[in-house]
Amino acid sequence: MSWELSKFGKNLCEGSGIGELMADLGEALASGGSVMMLGGGQPAHVPEMDAVWRRRMEEIMAEPGGMEKMLGNYDVPAGNEAFRMALADLFRKEFGWEVTHENFAVTMGGQTAFFFLFNALAGLFSDGRRKKILLPLLPEYIGYANQSVGAEFFEAIPARIEKTGPHEFKYRVDFDVVDPGDEIAAICVSRPTNPSGNVLTDGEIERLREIARAKNIPLIVDNAYGAPFPNVIFSEVTPVWDEGMILTLSLSKIGLPGTRTGIVVASKEVCRNVASMTSIVGLANANVGQEILRPLVASGEILRLSKDVVKPFYEERSRLAQRWFAEAFADDLPYFIHRSEGALFLWLWFEDLPITTKELYQRLKKRKVLVVPGEYFFFGLPEGADWPHTRECIRVSYTMDAELVEAGIKVIAEEVTRCYREG
Amino acid sequence: MSWELSKFGKNLCEGSGIGELMADLGEALASGGSVMMLGGGQPAHVPEMDAVWRRRMEEIMAEPGGMEKMLGNYDVPAGNEAFRMALADLFRKEFGWEVTHENFAVTMGGQTAFFFLFNALAGLFSDGRRKKILLPLLPEYIGYANQSVGAEFFEAIPARIEKTGPHEFKYRVDFDVVDPGDEIAAICVSRPTNPSGNVLTDGEIERLREIARAKNIPLIVDNAYGAPFPNVIFSEVTPVWDEGMILTLSLSKIGLPGTRTGIVVASKEVCRNVASMTSIVGLANANVGQEILRPLVASGEILRLSKDVVKPFYEERSRLAQRWFAEAFADDLPYFIHRSEGALFLWLWFEDLPITTKELYQRLKKRKVLVVPGEYFFFGLPEGADWPHTRECIRVSYTMDAELVEAGIKVIAEEVTRCYREG
Repeated sequence: MSWELSKFGKNLCEGSGIGELMADLGEALASGGSVMMLGGGQPAHVPEMDAVWRRRMEEIMAEPGGMEKMLGNYDVPAGNEAFRMALADLFRKEFGWEVTHENFAVTMGGQTAFFFLFNALAGLFSDGRRKKILLPLLPEYIGYANQSVGAEFFEAIPARIEKTGPHEFKYRVDFDVVDPGDEIAAICVSRPTNPSGNVLTDGEIERLREIARAKNIPLIVDNAYGAPFPNVIFSEVTPVWDEGMILTLSLSKIGLPGTRTGIVVASKEVCRNVASMTSIVGLANANVGQEILRPLVASGEILRLSKDVVKPFYEERSRLAQRWFAEAFADDLPYFIHRSEGALFLWLWFEDLPITTKELYQRLKKRKVLVVPGEYFFFGLPEGADWPHTRECIRVSYTMDAELVEAGIKVIAEEVTRCYREG
Repeated sequence: MSWELSKFGKNLCEGSGIGELMADLGEALASGGSVMMLGGGQPAHVPEMDAVWRRRMEEIMAEPGGMEKMLGNYDVPAGNEAFRMALADLFRKEFGWEVTHENFAVTMGGQTAFFFLFNALAGLFSDGRRKKILLPLLPEYIGYANQSVGAEFFEAIPARIEKTGPHEFKYRVDFDVVDPGDEIAAICVSRPTNPSGNVLTDGEIERLREIARAKNIPLIVDNAYGAPFPNVIFSEVTPVWDEGMILTLSLSKIGLPGTRTGIVVASKEVCRNVASMTSIVGLANANVGQEILRPLVASGEILRLSKDVVKPFYEERSRLAQRWFAEAFADDLPYFIHRSEGALFLWLWFEDLPITTKELYQRLKKRKVLVVPGEYFFFGLPEGADWPHTRECIRVSYTMDAELVEAGIKVIAEEVTRCYREG
């Protein structure tokens, strides 16, 4: 029994990079460790953080009616008001932003926030016009790629590649071509960037803000790995926000992906719109993540945990992963690691690799090492554009147990070396 | 700062009945009881069920790594495999349906399943055709009304009204006009029906199945209140399913709305499509509801709880609410209660009421009683159709504390009586 699919159905049902990635990830986790899972965005189980979650669950269970309310009550579609008030206090104190709880809207994970925002701002308009989302630094997050309910709505600008060391590079925004026309509805960047671990400099963000402001379009910043939590950001940068921006945060990377909790910081109007979309698409949000985090936000403990526990944990993991790659690769191979400035991945560029990274992915999968082939992160380019770089990169997560990551990196280096040596 | 909205944005951001309802509900719950909340679909806190949730949470906390996995791991977009296997076993045993875990897909609540299914099957097609969803028994669930990402896609058939007692009526499908053309993508009903508490008879369901089968379109049955859980169904009917149907269930009405857990039972292809939509729109589902319910499904305990605890609880509440209405209304008033066959509401029809029920809603709100005006449940009618019945009904939930419901019913009767007597 098979039924015809609408445009929406074809776009969202017929395979996607993110779908394959999530399926790989779930199966690898279910396999109980026989697969070296360096693919998906699964965060590490940081022992101190898991202890905090346990403490919070015990507190909720001990509070009269606490658990019953969390599991058994619908909350307002915008998200729990006390949680949003605590967030507003934290952001006012920490960054000096002029926000109230009405500048916050909760969503079912950060990914859902992007589905809502992209489709509400871009795509088809009542008068027949179409608008697009400008991605000024490609490669960009795989999870955006298939989110349009209608025609493709991304226009992406390839990053300028700057070699910054014998085996290191960094992406830069190519401002020469960032010139949004009337068909651009918004500019969007992830910071830290998923997949590359790049962090746009304060200067780059300032220029993007100015461009957006001049065109009266929002600058959307995906802050899933950023400050003030989880704070997986290793360079010194300043978080900024004003009503011309839409910032998103997530509880996933601090360790609560199973709760599906995202947060939008935006003008009150945008937050009302997000709440409206939540009510129509899913009635309300899941309560558990909000209830776990609420007092940690109110007390500011979440800042200490992010700075003193989460950030150092991943910074050390990144350092180790880079060392293992350096040890595993011969120095004469043209491999380059993007400068690791944040997020949970290393992004590797194998210049002039004789095979595509999709083929490399298959070879690695046979050896029980899962990575994400870079092709998926290059979307929104003009039809027919040929940029060899799009087939020469892989994303490698360093969040799994250190021995697994080290073993996986050795396998990657072996296979890549074989490609270069044997073609 | 205000940005132009796409069609998707206009449809989903600019106010909706379900948005107002959820906002009312959340605010009423937050107000801590000063409002008599007879509006939203908030289920009761049934003490035995809350005790079961507590026991399950304690078990999860005691199981090594149980809590950490539930909160801290992404699962596959289709939903936890062990949970879906337990569901397949239960449905095979209980109903004899030929299903495996691949015939189940989890969503972020039942509402989200409908957003996915409606938009994937109906709306705009690649070749420019448009298709619609046929609702063969209007009034139908308020939460569907605004779910189209493009043009309105419902075609609804007014129910035949059958007066079955001095103050009782029942809706029947008007089969004389159920004749789907090529533009109909699917037939959809809720059973028990939200808002009316009607339960389509086995005969009505069989005829709808035959019609759908003949047209090679799916019959979608929203089973959020139905069997085998939560089983808030007071008439004797048989749940049916085959690959020509799509059935949805929910954990909300059994007491876990804060976890946002919906379940789709369908062909493997439809379930793969739902999982794909989940991955693109939200990466994965929330784990907590699935993990709480999994062993209760595996052991069959959920059946006993639904039959012996949940159903009798609501059946008694319904009986009480009906009695209170009978006591509060003078016998000469033309009020009619839809025969209460399931779900958490009474559906009242005030024949020839001198004001609209939207006005009645405002009068009741001033007296701190919230109901849902019936207008919101009548959508998908031809433009310009005038059916006075659409302005003469209200939905009254009986899930709150009995004293509140009784007090609220008295206020409703007073206001309605005043309308009839004074105009």
